[in-house]
Amino acid sequence: MNDYNYILKQIYQDIQPLLGKGRVADYIPALANADRNKFAMAVRLLDGTQFSIGNIDETFSIQSVSKVLSLTTVIAENDEFLSTRCGKEPSGTPFNSLVQLEYESGIPRNPFINAGALVTSDQMYTNLNNPKKDFLRFVRDLSGNRELEYNEKIARSEFKAGFRNAALINLMKDFNNIENCIDGVLDTYYHQCSIEMNCANLCDTFSFLANYGVNPINNKKVISRSVAKRINAIMLTCGTYDAVGDVAYRIGLPAKSGVGGGIIAIVPGLLTVSVWSPGLDEKGNSLAGIKALELFTTYADNSIF
Amino acid sequence: MNDYNYILKQIYQDIQPLLGKGRVADYIPALANADRNKFAMAVRLLDGTQFSIGNIDETFSIQSVSKVLSLTTVIAENDEFLSTRCGKEPSGTPFNSLVQLEYESGIPRNPFINAGALVTSDQMYTNLNNPKKDFLRFVRDLSGNRELEYNEKIARSEFKAGFRNAALINLMKDFNNIENCIDGVLDTYYHQCSIEMNCANLCDTFSFLANYGVNPINNKKVISRSVAKRINAIMLTCGTYDAVGDVAYRIGLPAKSGVGGGIIAIVPGLLTVSVWSPGLDEKGNSLAGIKALELFTTYADNSIF
Amino acid sequence: MNDYNYILKQIYQDIQPLLGKGRVADYIPALANADRNKFAMAVRLLDGTQFSIGNIDETFSIQSVSKVLSLTTVIAENDEFLSTRCGKEPSGTPFNSLVQLEYESGIPRNPFINAGALVTSDQMYTNLNNPKKDFLRFVRDLSGNRELEYNEKIARSEFKAGFRNAALINLMKDFNNIENCIDGVLDTYYHQCSIEMNCANLCDTFSFLANYGVNPINNKKVISRSVAKRINAIMLTCGTYDAVGDVAYRIGLPAKSGVGGGIIAIVPGLLTVSVWSPGLDEKGNSLAGIKALELFTTYADNSIF
Amino acid sequence: MNDYNYILKQIYQDIQPLLGKGRVADYIPALANADRNKFAMAVRLLDGTQFSIGNIDETFSIQSVSKVLSLTTVIAENDEFLSTRCGKEPSGTPFNSLVQLEYESGIPRNPFINAGALVTSDQMYTNLNNPKKDFLRFVRDLSGNRELEYNEKIARSEFKAGFRNAALINLMKDFNNIENCIDGVLDTYYHQCSIEMNCANLCDTFSFLANYGVNPINNKKVISRSVAKRINAIMLTCGTYDAVGDVAYRIGLPAKSGVGGGIIAIVPGLLTVSVWSPGLDEKGNSLAGIKALELFTTYADNSIF
Repeated sequence: MNDYNYILKQIYQDIQPLLGKGRVADYIPALANADRNKFAMAVRLLDGTQFSIGNIDETFSIQSVSKVLSLTTVIAENDEFLSTRCGKEPSGTPFNSLVQLEYESGIPRNPFINAGALVTSDQMYTNLNNPKKDFLRFVRDLSGNRELEYNEKIARSEFKAGFRNAALINLMKDFNNIENCIDGVLDTYYHQCSIEMNCANLCDTFSFLANYGVNPINNKKVISRSVAKRINAIMLTCGTYDAVGDVAYRIGLPAKSGVGGGIIAIVPGLLTVSVWSPGLDEKGNSLAGIKALELFTTYADNSIF
Repeated sequence: MNDYNYILKQIYQDIQPLLGKGRVADYIPALANADRNKFAMAVRLLDGTQFSIGNIDETFSIQSVSKVLSLTTVIAENDEFLSTRCGKEPSGTPFNSLVQLEYESGIPRNPFINAGALVTSDQMYTNLNNPKKDFLRFVRDLSGNRELEYNEKIARSEFKAGFRNAALINLMKDFNNIENCIDGVLDTYYHQCSIEMNCANLCDTFSFLANYGVNPINNKKVISRSVAKRINAIMLTCGTYDAVGDVAYRIGLPAKSGVGGGIIAIVPGLLTVSVWSPGLDEKGNSLAGIKALELFTTYADNSIF
Repeated sequence: MNDYNYILKQIYQDIQPLLGKGRVADYIPALANADRNKFAMAVRLLDGTQFSIGNIDETFSIQSVSKVLSLTTVIAENDEFLSTRCGKEPSGTPFNSLVQLEYESGIPRNPFINAGALVTSDQMYTNLNNPKKDFLRFVRDLSGNRELEYNEKIARSEFKAGFRNAALINLMKDFNNIENCIDGVLDTYYHQCSIEMNCANLCDTFSFLANYGVNPINNKKVISRSVAKRINAIMLTCGTYDAVGDVAYRIGLPAKSGVGGGIIAIVPGLLTVSVWSPGLDEKGNSLAGIKALELFTTYADNSIF
Repeated sequence: MNDYNYILKQIYQDIQPLLGKGRVADYIPALANADRNKFAMAVRLLDGTQFSIGNIDETFSIQSVSKVLSLTTVIAENDEFLSTRCGKEPSGTPFNSLVQLEYESGIPRNPFINAGALVTSDQMYTNLNNPKKDFLRFVRDLSGNRELEYNEKIARSEFKAGFRNAALINLMKDFNNIENCIDGVLDTYYHQCSIEMNCANLCDTFSFLANYGVNPINNKKVISRSVAKRINAIMLTCGTYDAVGDVAYRIGLPAKSGVGGGIIAIVPGLLTVSVWSPGLDEKGNSLAGIKALELFTTYADNSIF
């Protein structure tokens, strides 16, 4: 049995030289001022035991980590979503690329690149009565934290600067792969990205994926065992932009990162581990966060491979 | 000396089997009802002599043929436009492709693919006090026809359905290659495409390019001799979508086509020849129109090669 | 504890409708006559217990499955191989594509696409005194079967028809990413692909990857625990051509397939499972084989996710 | 009537600052020692009047300029060559790119990129009894110089270093677009590229293209008037690597360049003009040569536009 307190302390010490390093997501004005010296890490076992270290009370917008949650709502209701409107293969291209989309008739390679996340949000927009309200309630339920909120300022700021995403969604609309009005879908998408929570919340929110689809906090089934495994599989093959091979190689866990500096990783049947540090590497993943997760699977010896 | 009346009659006879063939631009609702049996052709010598045949009184929207005119206004004022904001090389890809734009940092390959025409309209929007009004006046001056108008219905219809162009302009905005607000530039662009004229007007409008930059109708200098030659060169290498090689090979004249079915071609120092027929080939050029121009340079023996 | 005899019987029954389906690798003359009605499957637990079903005595050439073995020899000696001469990211393109190679200066995306396997064979050619002889001995040691041989006829036949691989290796040579003479490397490569064994041998050969780098047959350490995990990770993200996402999603195990119809999959810490059936799906993976592995992880509930 | 002696002198003076600049084709060992201070230019009117300046007696290998000559032999016999085995559109990609070839099933975009020239040589290899001997005789006839020879050292040197071309031809062979044995075709190709002549010979050799298909030196018809025009058209749209738009824009003549530093340009119905200087610009065209041709069409006012 691992001593996770000791492991977290060791990691915290090891990653110190990386703090203050990396870049922040300066194309999103509201994120440009993030403090790259911040770092937090949390572990939650399935029995509810929790461990954490660092700036654990600081909140941050989860950004692309939210793509797993929107996919969860969609895939639970639309079996065929990943065979009709979106693929599930690694893209081999940057997260915001339009190239593949043009060659492949507006069908994104997977739900975790931007194009795929936009189609997912479009499907969610179709499915939910009140997309923004319903999605926020869903995330609050998962996390057990009724206080979670959208950061309206970040959502607006990203919408305004989001020319690349506007290009992606217009291109897919041209290929008839967007069902709803573009502005409505973008508004939903930018709101989901703007949800703020702290690193411990992040760990809690994703516990259902370590627990085979059942939220261990309230014992409610979120999705089937099979769907949970499949979402973990997609996280492993597509979850960390164009660094998925490297992350599988070095960390060996299903993981999803966001440009806000947060990353969530799953040890199926055992635990969730979350990390946050705003400085990003050149692939867009948290620099200290990736290193911390690599150390975590090394010290705890719990990569899935 | 060629007998152009005889040549036009011969061509008119030869292209009959192609009338009613091809497709129309059905992605533009207002163009979907065009009659593919229509055909008109006109020749204007530099001395003002005119020849024509077919449905010469019918008007049509000039669509992409207008890209030559917007480029003319821009290049006359902005020497460096084709070395900073837009290239002048054939693209080797379809007219509405986003691929090259992504690989090449938002700089379109040339001003006659859609991306390049949008950047050109953006520059025109910057240059002109009242872009739509000023551009219409410019075209009226060229044509000698004060009655020319935008077709507001077509402009609106194309704007509404133009998701691909919206993708292109958003992508370029993301690369900082669009200076003005997207909706304003798109509005200007769709208006310029919607200008309606008949085939004889088209011939007149472009006479300045056959006459080394001077409008032979009113003897006013539009652009310098050198710029006129350069625009002709770009028409030859980039004017007919991804059929430029084939058009140079079969026709051998600088030419610019539009999905409305119009094509203009230039015999420098001698004449302009225009043709219109709404049925399009698979490259988006008028089916009967391309054939008519091929017959024209064969019968009149005036290819530039 | 799973009853693997029962599971294999169940699978054998379930996949019957797929036998005789799919295509064979007809671009390799020596494989074109493979019988698509054949099927074999084997399981080997780490304690040496073995289970099998079907045409378990039939041998076949392992083809691309051999890429894991050549990588094993190389990575054991050349730490930096996967950061200098070859990547470890999924390619997002077909296994024999030249496109990415051209864009990325002759560095293949990963060692399991053809380009990457050729660079791996080139490195092996550099490392080994007698590449063909030494590699064969290495595989015999792993399998515990001293009788394994190259199929010279298949090796020659593939070499002769291998224009695409010749294109790949010449392109990489042009980028200075091939150290040895092209014909020598190709000869080594085609020989490694031609190694013949039966399905039970295949299971045995790869047991070191389930056993964290130690061959459980003879208790010899092949590679370090860390390297074994890393090879498993690359198999998961890159092992099944452009179906890796789908295989992770449906099967959830590190796996490597070959166009001879063989597939090997690893349940780390538990077992290896191999399957063989020559009929291929459109991605180049064994049609019945992929289905059999999907059923296996469903019935045995041992996906890594 | 232009005073070509005066024009050449003026040009010679103007281009002095460019001599010694640019790079040489160092990937071809035998060309790496070329003297970038050399420059020659020649003009030949259809009546046989000749003008020249600079190092007019120095010979150089014509390299890619030979692609026009191999195309001439092929197109004269195989009408359908440019619609079945090779296109005639500008490629929009570098001359030695494999990307388009892979996307477009091994059919090169045009005969003047390397892939297209290799297919052309393959067709020539099929057509001619003794490809190398017959082709040399053909070029000697065109030039009126019976002394022209292949430079065997250059041919061998390029063959040995030609991994990229080997990649291209193997890829096309894989797509069944090469009929003959690869080594035979490559040998023919490298020989045709190695033909040596001086700048005046180059001018003479291509006079048939200015004279509508008839060699003005001996009044023998080489190809039909129509084919001559078509070859000129392809030179304009595809003759100068990925600088065709720029060359059309600045020079306005059909032209073909080679990495040996030679360029030929055609003023249909009037003259041929050749230029040679080994220093190359970043597109692979002679730096001083392109400038000299730009000055030529400016001073002589004979661009085709």
